[in-house]
Amino acid sequence: MRLAHVLAARQRIQHFVRRTPLVHSVWLSEAAGATVRLKLESLQVTNSFKARGALNVAAARLERPAGDPDRTRLMVTASAGNHGRALAYAAECLGLSLVVFTPRHAPRAKLDYIARHGGDLRATARTYEDSERLAKQFAEHERVTYISPYSHPDVIAGAGTVALEILEDWPEVEEILVPIGGGGLASGVALVAKAISPAIEIVGVEAEASPAFHTALAAGRIVEVEVKPTLADGLAGNMDPDTITFDYVQRLVDRVEVVPEDAIEEAIRGLLAHEHLVAEGAGAVAVASVARMVRREPRNIAVVVTGSNIDSATLAPLLTR
Amino acid sequence: MRLAHVLAARQRIQHFVRRTPLVHSVWLSEAAGATVRLKLESLQVTNSFKARGALNVAAARLERPAGDPDRTRLMVTASAGNHGRALAYAAECLGLSLVVFTPRHAPRAKLDYIARHGGDLRATARTYEDSERLAKQFAEHERVTYISPYSHPDVIAGAGTVALEILEDWPEVEEILVPIGGGGLASGVALVAKAISPAIEIVGVEAEASPAFHTALAAGRIVEVEVKPTLADGLAGNMDPDTITFDYVQRLVDRVEVVPEDAIEEAIRGLLAHEHLVAEGAGAVAVASVARMVRREPRNIAVVVTGSNIDSATLAPLLTR
Repeated sequence: MRLAHVLAARQRIQHFVRRTPLVHSVWLSEAAGATVRLKLESLQVTNSFKARGALNVAAARLERPAGDPDRTRLMVTASAGNHGRALAYAAECLGLSLVVFTPRHAPRAKLDYIARHGGDLRATARTYEDSERLAKQFAEHERVTYISPYSHPDVIAGAGTVALEILEDWPEVEEILVPIGGGGLASGVALVAKAISPAIEIVGVEAEASPAFHTALAAGRIVEVEVKPTLADGLAGNMDPDTITFDYVQRLVDRVEVVPEDAIEEAIRGLLAHEHLVAEGAGAVAVASVARMVRREPRNIAVVVTGSNIDSATLAPLLTR
Repeated sequence: MRLAHVLAARQRIQHFVRRTPLVHSVWLSEAAGATVRLKLESLQVTNSFKARGALNVAAARLERPAGDPDRTRLMVTASAGNHGRALAYAAECLGLSLVVFTPRHAPRAKLDYIARHGGDLRATARTYEDSERLAKQFAEHERVTYISPYSHPDVIAGAGTVALEILEDWPEVEEILVPIGGGGLASGVALVAKAISPAIEIVGVEAEASPAFHTALAAGRIVEVEVKPTLADGLAGNMDPDTITFDYVQRLVDRVEVVPEDAIEEAIRGLLAHEHLVAEGAGAVAVASVARMVRREPRNIAVVVTGSNIDSATLAPLLTR
């Protein structure tokens, strides 16, 4: 995949997603001894950056030649989170159908969002891994492509549009920090930044509780890690052993940092107190990294806040602690 | 003042303020039986719509002929809130000076914002009314104009740019709800909407605890009201007896509603839970009105969320209630 695919993605999705603001943060600039701006994908439609990849994958299908199995109106995925919601929104925008497999005990609020956009929910699996297996079986049976939340070129190209906007708004940016879970956003952002300005440093940030990329990069190959509970539930889990993102991250991302739970909590609280912004745990990990940084040289740092899908019941106790 | 002044204001301020998003709200649309979109001035620079009026008043000074007392580099105001912060930001953007009179017990966090942008703080007065009096005396002594938070044509014209953006993004809008305190935003929005599409209904919403406009409109003249404590502190207080906004509101605003405290609290909580957005009490009163509405006919309603300057300490207990 090349920069051209990201530029094409932007053309496809521009009428369906928001160009989100890149805002200066006095709080983080002071904390890091740098100039820090926040890219607010927390304000994206569907409340996460996932809308970009979802719209791109859905819109790209409509361009396929007649007879191509990927041109069917039916899309299949497994997700009880931001990807499921975003893909349901994309299907609704473009008049496509979506079947979403989820664990049966997934949070009601998240399933409601998927159903609200007309997604056809199959909430029978016991675990996320089971729902992914069922989704892949269903896709094979229906002869359609299973749409991974991250290991899909059109999803990565859509996510890369975040970096295009950052570079247009701030050509002087020297470092971009992104949360890293499955690696779709990190791959897309790194691909764009290195193609346009190779000197820009790309840093992935993951939760210490689920250090899949940090461990894999150290080992030089994908290895299974123990996954502990984390506020950054949207990033938790092992990656697909066949994911195409590992190669992109290995080649293009300069380093991957891990942040502990208390730093994630502090970041959510700090965003609310200082910037009056809501972020979910996964959305706040890159902020957590910057808030703890002490740098010797001033740099221009862009930090992607990826999403804001957090329950008030989760948020409230964090504020009073 | 005419539409032309608002168009001129937009030209002046466009490089300093954000064009804020107008976003669909499923939550409020269902609650009101209507199509409801939120104009997110809570995401404006300085976290409130006040940046628009402040930038316009500051930039307009630079266009005055030499010798005009309003062309001085010094601005004077009284405010410990969003207007003070916004005017300090405007002064910083344009290289002007600002003296801000505030009560001596104003919240530290708010004073810090003003000081951070280089505002010269005079925090000696006992009450807000005292600081306003001191500011006016100082302005007279220095032969410069005191800049009211609402009773000033350039402030009103700046606020009116909110309505320009709503109408451009949604020409089908049928009703616009705005919080009303001093009446600057309501005046500007009504002026624009009635000039472009006279059928659009304009509704002002104020806190029941401080019903200055509701009472004045019923009496046909400005009358003093009792002001009780309210979450919407940014709207509380009696209006300047000489305010130019009363005439605009009387002529152009279709009605003024009041909302009780529990509705404001619910609105803040609902915005956070359903839309993952932070709003201060004053910013949420128009949302409070819509959330309680049951309509018989579907309408296109735009609701202005004016600001997000709320402390975590105030927000946290609202979420758990």
